Amino acid sequence: MAGRRNEREAMSGAGKESKAGGESRVAHELARYETLFARRTGSMKSSAMRDMMALTERDDLISLAGGLPDTRSFPQGLFADLMGAVATRAEAALQYGPTEGLAATRGCIREVMAAEGTIVDEADLIVTTGGQQVLDLVCRALIDPGDVIVTEAPTYPGALPTFTAYEARIEQVDLDGRGMPVDTLEERLDALDAQGLRPKFIYAIPSFQNPGGETMTLARRRRLVELARERELLILEDNPYGMLRYEGEALPTLHTLDAEYGSPGMVIYLGTFSKIIAPGLRLGWALAPRPVLEKLNLAKQGADLCSSPVTQMFVAELFARTSPQGGPLWLDYVARLRDLYRARRDAMLAALTEQFAGTARWTRPEGGMFVWLTLDGAVDTSDLLIRARERHGVAFVPGRAAFADGVRGARSMRLNFAGADEHDLREAVRRIGVATGEQLELLGALSGRRAPQDRGEGAQVVPLPTRETDARGRAGL
Amino acid sequence: MAGRRNEREAMSGAGKESKAGGESRVAHELARYETLFARRTGSMKSSAMRDMMALTERDDLISLAGGLPDTRSFPQGLFADLMGAVATRAEAALQYGPTEGLAATRGCIREVMAAEGTIVDEADLIVTTGGQQVLDLVCRALIDPGDVIVTEAPTYPGALPTFTAYEARIEQVDLDGRGMPVDTLEERLDALDAQGLRPKFIYAIPSFQNPGGETMTLARRRRLVELARERELLILEDNPYGMLRYEGEALPTLHTLDAEYGSPGMVIYLGTFSKIIAPGLRLGWALAPRPVLEKLNLAKQGADLCSSPVTQMFVAELFARTSPQGGPLWLDYVARLRDLYRARRDAMLAALTEQFAGTARWTRPEGGMFVWLTLDGAVDTSDLLIRARERHGVAFVPGRAAFADGVRGARSMRLNFAGADEHDLREAVRRIGVATGEQLELLGALSGRRAPQDRGEGAQVVPLPTRETDARGRAGL
Repeated sequence: MAGRRNEREAMSGAGKESKAGGESRVAHELARYETLFARRTGSMKSSAMRDMMALTERDDLISLAGGLPDTRSFPQGLFADLMGAVATRAEAALQYGPTEGLAATRGCIREVMAAEGTIVDEADLIVTTGGQQVLDLVCRALIDPGDVIVTEAPTYPGALPTFTAYEARIEQVDLDGRGMPVDTLEERLDALDAQGLRPKFIYAIPSFQNPGGETMTLARRRRLVELARERELLILEDNPYGMLRYEGEALPTLHTLDAEYGSPGMVIYLGTFSKIIAPGLRLGWALAPRPVLEKLNLAKQGADLCSSPVTQMFVAELFARTSPQGGPLWLDYVARLRDLYRARRDAMLAALTEQFAGTARWTRPEGGMFVWLTLDGAVDTSDLLIRARERHGVAFVPGRAAFADGVRGARSMRLNFAGADEHDLREAVRRIGVATGEQLELLGALSGRRAPQDRGEGAQVVPLPTRETDARGRAGL
Repeated sequence: MAGRRNEREAMSGAGKESKAGGESRVAHELARYETLFARRTGSMKSSAMRDMMALTERDDLISLAGGLPDTRSFPQGLFADLMGAVATRAEAALQYGPTEGLAATRGCIREVMAAEGTIVDEADLIVTTGGQQVLDLVCRALIDPGDVIVTEAPTYPGALPTFTAYEARIEQVDLDGRGMPVDTLEERLDALDAQGLRPKFIYAIPSFQNPGGETMTLARRRRLVELARERELLILEDNPYGMLRYEGEALPTLHTLDAEYGSPGMVIYLGTFSKIIAPGLRLGWALAPRPVLEKLNLAKQGADLCSSPVTQMFVAELFARTSPQGGPLWLDYVARLRDLYRARRDAMLAALTEQFAGTARWTRPEGGMFVWLTLDGAVDTSDLLIRARERHGVAFVPGRAAFADGVRGARSMRLNFAGADEHDLREAVRRIGVATGEQLELLGALSGRRAPQDRGEGAQVVPLPTRETDARGRAGL
């Protein structure tokens, strides 16, 4: 590669622009690209998601960063069997498919949604290239520069770069342990209204929120839907983890509650196979009111024409299988994931209590994949991540990535408990604990004290009195 | 499904908004969505591509519409074998992958490009969800509303909706049988410059152009690259068919010619596995100057995080196989496609001569998948398509889809010769001929004459004197 570069430079020297040569030309040409970039690229920054993705090919550290499910638990034999079944239909699998997705795959989606209590018409669905693409297509259909999107705070770190790429103005409403407080949302809507602004949609992750780990109460769900209808606002309900509940009663989706009012609805529903089957399939879906669906379909044509029939047929083959007990095999697999993740969640919560009791607060999720941890000490987790990765071989998502301003959440981190086994989870939490201690000592040394209280954030290295309520997590509040 | 609708309506009647009920409410709510849509959706229309995608699950007609390659020729046994090999690496295949693509897959891309005469550094590549996504990501990185993109005329029908979704202003330069005339391009650039406009990029498909079927000469390629460097313009080179040449000498890509000037380059190169392996994999790539590549990577994170590791590993497995003769197996497959498509092209050209000699002109492509046919008669091929599909069971892409104004190209159509076998191609051309004859008769009847010359388009049902040059096609000019 170095040889190639030298060769190119030599050719450049012999080329027609050699007169201008040297570094000034290169600087000039780099500046030239700058003038060509779209305005939206100014707000495009490498989010925490970037590193998460980059990390997935490394195996020299324990990463709790990405929203990686456990893909080791997918039975090797079943995988080979399904791949073989897809191969028997090579002609169709290898060809383009319809933009809205294969009928068989949309049938599988109907099954997933029925298992969550929602009966849908397959014609209201579009298959997408992962759930992420739904965020993108919805923005493409709805967002002009300056349009408002309301999100929870913290919110899915991977959504923020998409929203800002469409030059949306993001308003965030703080979570309080029971999901987005709808009264606070109302106040915010009133304030926006006073400025002549009406959000294009409210982005909510009601169940086992990413990254907050908390679940919106039924009363709030009802009120949120009511509010959306009163004010004629769309809701984008992101529900990747709905089937991954480890305790407590299932709650109806916002879509289900909205449907009780009849059609046309105000909820665009985002689902995905990433967390219940596998992210490598890159298959998600949107359920949307027909006029919106039509725009999503047009947007998808321009984006990638269609999602892969190979992986769509893989899903259809899986859903056609029955378990030895006679039920759908995919439901067995999801049940197995639930058991696996429940044990991992418990292991992580135990490790956190051991490592961070009295020095941090964290959520206790009833499902999903994430714990949100906030340090009492004045450690910036973005800085901490560098130390944690480089010196201790452990990674997490720093909290700033979940806030639109990139400033808030500095003492928080998102921890994924689904992707690593219990041993690694314990070890990872231990490493984060050690890294945090080192960082606090460093801060103390820099400021001449152990606890940099001049930052006004109540940082303490010495354990605070155990705050039972906080240690149990906000979800218990 | 109807039951579900009725149920919903009944629920609606019992719901909280029942007072407002009835059709006016529905109309109101539909109008409500309208106010929520982004401005860009105003220019989103269901392109011809839509129908093409929708048609792929039907088999009651012969479609020459979509850019469908022949996927029946992919050996069933090999497909099963490769799928099985991917399944042995279930954990990685089912997991998220890095945004820029798996290293192994980028290695395969390097091989494809080397086979086309370009040596690339894998670090300059990004794997995308089909070539279509490159168009989308490049626009996301470069296009603000009102920015100019210069394309060929006609151009790839699937590119136009993407460009207009980014609210680009599209300037088209007419092809003349030897690719985009660079002197005409220069004049257009001067005219734009006089308006203070500088295109963000020039979109060109130099080899076996889609839909034109013609190939840009070497002299024009050199001059185009030279012009881009003189004027500091980026070129987006779309090269899906470069390896599908059926006769004549291979020509260097624009990227290769640009690289002779040294780095940093002015060409963003779009490649895809869709035409040389299979579109169902949904894998393409971009090769771009580093500052641009960085933006493409950020854009892809927001769009779909990463492309499927399942299909990426499928490609890597294929590229690892050797043929019985010892060479790379994938090159054997491409060679087989070339033989197959060459025979189909010849069959189509023969059928066109039989059916349309003296009543139409068409191109004679040296490679790729498409013939561009222009009727002498005043038949609008958008209208003709309806008749052709509904009465004769044959489909093509109407020419208007290849023009930004949606008006030009009304007498032209794009015919794909790669996706159907020789028998079907002959039958399809025959059916198009019959449909065209009927449409001309209908037009004649409507206007009281057989040839509606009042439309000033020289329409004739009676065969015109054979115009040898035109019948040989523009590519021969």
